Amino acid sequence: MAKRINSTPKKDGFRMPGEFEPQEQIFMIWPDRPDNWRNGGKPAQEAFKNVAVAISEFEPVTMLVSPQQYANARNRLPEQIRVVEMTNNDSWVRDCGPTFVKDDKGELRGIDWDFNAWGGLVDGLYFPWDQDDMIAQKVCELERVDSYKTAGFVLEGGSIHVDGEGTVMTTEMCLLSEGRNPHMSKQEIEDMLKEYLNCEKVIWLKDGIDPEETNGHIDDVACFVAPGEAACIWTEDPEDPFYEVAQQAYSILSESTDAKGRKLKVHKLTTTKKPVTISGDFDIDYVEGTVPREDGELCISSYMNFLIVNGGVIVPQYEDENDALALEQVQAMFPDRKVVGVNTKEVVYGGGNIHCITQQMPKR
Amino acid sequence: MAKRINSTPKKDGFRMPGEFEPQEQIFMIWPDRPDNWRNGGKPAQEAFKNVAVAISEFEPVTMLVSPQQYANARNRLPEQIRVVEMTNNDSWVRDCGPTFVKDDKGELRGIDWDFNAWGGLVDGLYFPWDQDDMIAQKVCELERVDSYKTAGFVLEGGSIHVDGEGTVMTTEMCLLSEGRNPHMSKQEIEDMLKEYLNCEKVIWLKDGIDPEETNGHIDDVACFVAPGEAACIWTEDPEDPFYEVAQQAYSILSESTDAKGRKLKVHKLTTTKKPVTISGDFDIDYVEGTVPREDGELCISSYMNFLIVNGGVIVPQYEDENDALALEQVQAMFPDRKVVGVNTKEVVYGGGNIHCITQQMPKR
Repeated sequence: MAKRINSTPKKDGFRMPGEFEPQEQIFMIWPDRPDNWRNGGKPAQEAFKNVAVAISEFEPVTMLVSPQQYANARNRLPEQIRVVEMTNNDSWVRDCGPTFVKDDKGELRGIDWDFNAWGGLVDGLYFPWDQDDMIAQKVCELERVDSYKTAGFVLEGGSIHVDGEGTVMTTEMCLLSEGRNPHMSKQEIEDMLKEYLNCEKVIWLKDGIDPEETNGHIDDVACFVAPGEAACIWTEDPEDPFYEVAQQAYSILSESTDAKGRKLKVHKLTTTKKPVTISGDFDIDYVEGTVPREDGELCISSYMNFLIVNGGVIVPQYEDENDALALEQVQAMFPDRKVVGVNTKEVVYGGGNIHCITQQMPKR
Repeated sequence: MAKRINSTPKKDGFRMPGEFEPQEQIFMIWPDRPDNWRNGGKPAQEAFKNVAVAISEFEPVTMLVSPQQYANARNRLPEQIRVVEMTNNDSWVRDCGPTFVKDDKGELRGIDWDFNAWGGLVDGLYFPWDQDDMIAQKVCELERVDSYKTAGFVLEGGSIHVDGEGTVMTTEMCLLSEGRNPHMSKQEIEDMLKEYLNCEKVIWLKDGIDPEETNGHIDDVACFVAPGEAACIWTEDPEDPFYEVAQQAYSILSESTDAKGRKLKVHKLTTTKKPVTISGDFDIDYVEGTVPREDGELCISSYMNFLIVNGGVIVPQYEDENDALALEQVQAMFPDRKVVGVNTKEVVYGGGNIHCITQQMPKR
């Protein structure tokens, strides 16, 4: 029904499609942990609902919900959102969910990477993470999709982007971090990516913008817009906290060629005008093992953390002066898609944004 | 995605198919409550696994599992059984799960009856039952099936059998019990059955064999084998605890006509040679609100509690002298199906059997 396959996607002719390829549905996880989401998670739940509703204008959404929150989530979400009970440690399905791969006949399979809350006992963000580590398997079984388990190899979906044609991009800061796979060399890690995503070329950026959270996930910095086309964050303001990473990313990407030998066209996407910081009525539980968030803290706000869906792009908005500019720039990257902004300040207060809280399942 | 429909199946042209019609899959719920299942539920889990495996030879099985038991169930069950997390109060999906109805185009919908643990605060078997009452909705949403909610009307799937051609059979003992719908007359209850199951005729048997448990569910006493054909339990031994109910059921059924005006052909199915009683190493938790089970107690053992699946019939076995006879008699009723016996003493120790712990989803 949903088997574990003892092989690799490359051997079996399965590849990870680009996010811009046709999708069947989007998964999300309902936020509820009061030691990460302020005020019992109520403001975050409202923001997640708004993201889910925005996506559901384009394609089906399944919201995975912890047992305790089932009735609440079912009542707060409109009927078109499918609600399915699933125990979790937090709401980052991009990172703990399966990475789907597809073959030429349209069959889907999942990759169930090891998940250790972004660094395990070295610099992970919460403990335990056992329930999150089971999400990929549970989602695959829910959808009757066979899966590959990379036992002993830690990876999160937010640390990779593919073009669907043999190229993957990632960051050294994350993939070479002490809390992931310190027993492996850069070459060995590169070989794993190629084997499981079925790629021939890895483009290595250096840093991400959140060294202390995900250790620099690619999905806050850069992405593929289409085969041969990338995008990255951009600012010319040296005071911007993300200035150096943006310059570095643009420089590397614009000098890169992809697996097909194409020189990448690189779109620039603005950062926020002002740094977004946690502010206001911010009350979270103190829990042993959870990295606390505090009033005044710099948020990892990036317009790059958008999600591509069928016919649309769902883009974070921060009540910032550059919100409209970001939508225009994303629209220019995707002239045939409808660009929809959603205010997700409450999501970034928890450490991520739209791309981090979603996982696409490609069309079979 | 999975809407609540504010109408009735009859109005919308949906009917409940007979159990002998083609099925898409079978649902079960993994047993774990230590105040009902002996020795922490381990012997019952083994029996449920054997039932699931027997069914999976004929069609897909989805096992719904409480969050605490997910890893254990996933590891004990073979890969062909789909395991999905779902909080529950106990394992009687026949009674708390949806009753599926189907229209001429093959679309499915679910009926989400009110569930109150077989009698609520009057004579229910455990408290609370809130999680069981959500199972029907959750299953419908899992399978993306719209549903009807009978708010204010209590019914369990084990208290009805249909022939798929306009006839339903049930018992007065159960449907007219004080703990179900005491505010409604027999005629009003009959009208509800006709409206939701899309039937024209209700055949009322009087009693079931477990007045103190389900208040006499039909699925321990009689069923439809095919349109125009029924079966009921049978014994000629006046000392048999189920003698009177068997005589009464046979007498009523063999004098009944169905919705199409056919006189029913009635097959006889033996009872066990000796009464089955709880015996041996029987240790359950004492919990306030749960009706306790005790060593020496008479079990509600009935061969009638079989499940019809695609091409097969899964029949309870009790290590009784009549086990083989029961299989022969079921085989005679279903000459074109493979009859498979499963030792389910551990299930009947918990108060039911194969039919009670399964729910079929018809083929779309």
